[in-house]
Amino acid sequence: MPTTPVTCYAFENVPPFARGLVRDLRVRWALEETGSEYETRLVGQGPQALAGAEYRHIQPFGQIPAIQDGELTLFESGAIVLHLAEDSEALMPRDPIARAHVKQWMFAALNTIEPSIQNLAEIDLFNADKAWARERRPAVLERIDGRLKVLAGQLGGRDYLVGRFSAADVLMSSVLRILRHTEILGDHPILAAYQQRCEARPAFERALAAHLSDFVPWTQ
Amino acid sequence: MPTTPVTCYAFENVPPFARGLVRDLRVRWALEETGSEYETRLVGQGPQALAGAEYRHIQPFGQIPAIQDGELTLFESGAIVLHLAEDSEALMPRDPIARAHVKQWMFAALNTIEPSIQNLAEIDLFNADKAWARERRPAVLERIDGRLKVLAGQLGGRDYLVGRFSAADVLMSSVLRILRHTEILGDHPILAAYQQRCEARPAFERALAAHLSDFVPWTQ
Repeated sequence: MPTTPVTCYAFENVPPFARGLVRDLRVRWALEETGSEYETRLVGQGPQALAGAEYRHIQPFGQIPAIQDGELTLFESGAIVLHLAEDSEALMPRDPIARAHVKQWMFAALNTIEPSIQNLAEIDLFNADKAWARERRPAVLERIDGRLKVLAGQLGGRDYLVGRFSAADVLMSSVLRILRHTEILGDHPILAAYQQRCEARPAFERALAAHLSDFVPWTQ
Repeated sequence: MPTTPVTCYAFENVPPFARGLVRDLRVRWALEETGSEYETRLVGQGPQALAGAEYRHIQPFGQIPAIQDGELTLFESGAIVLHLAEDSEALMPRDPIARAHVKQWMFAALNTIEPSIQNLAEIDLFNADKAWARERRPAVLERIDGRLKVLAGQLGGRDYLVGRFSAADVLMSSVLRILRHTEILGDHPILAAYQQRCEARPAFERALAAHLSDFVPWTQ
């Protein structure tokens, strides 16, 4: 582990609907679970912030998050959480088969569950008044419902995806959190309980508090 | 490395537009690059095939691919390619920073580039006649174009994403391949050349031939 704190990049500000969802939260949570020291570097237009054009030298797509960990500059929240988890039993068991399953569920969160949930968020948060959105929404809901039924069945009676808490739960519960503007998890009580269990962890609570408190007030 | 061949699950059949795109191709390619022995187990309705209901004990979402590697059963193409790459310098350099960057680009392929490309494929291949699809398509194209411009800039003068060929290129070029029904890569000559370079690799050619020849003829 490096002796210098990890730098985590985060937005200086976002609209209220996005607070608590920006993906630096996933990285802060992983950093808190692993007990890593970190500091935040804000990206935005304020006098203290790193300008967007400069940030693109670190994250070419301009997305949050990215980190600086010693000599390593890294983006993609999945890759960052994996990087932190690989060095810490707090997020990744030692057994090789269990490790492979943690990574399987990390990819499942981001590639099988998140895309349809993100499509719903784009419909509801950015395009609710558009004709295409109203026409498309039922099929997106149906896709989400099908995937969540399978996910609930896989979780079964376990507290976490691979039994014990892991990096897979950081990503999966963060993806489910994108549904907070809906009642969808109410139809899947196993997942609603799972989501609450994950977010009740002190590391999540610390991460969320830091994520929220770092936003500066709107100046316009 | 295990001494028994890896089993790779694949569909017994798919409609013509999906041939050459089903995600077992990514796994076969990685297996070919690492020189791993593998055998295929087909999933479908034929007398030789594993029935869909049984396959859900292996892959609960019913998606292809999954693998059996010794005692490990694993799904999610990203997780499988990562699993194969972690043990093979053919797909992953030894240097820790380069390894982290390979994983970064693997997640970028699946979480930053693929979702909008997959949205376009759903519009064009399944919903082309729907009003919502016609209304939504321009914004999806714009998102794709923006992401591909950044990707081309990142590739720059390099042959592959981290310089040498890696697991990141297996996933990224497989994602770009989903655009084959469009002329979009023609607007991004760096990416068109990258795509051709990746697909000219003998391991890809072997994987594609095996993927295509495993499909059984339609019986209805």
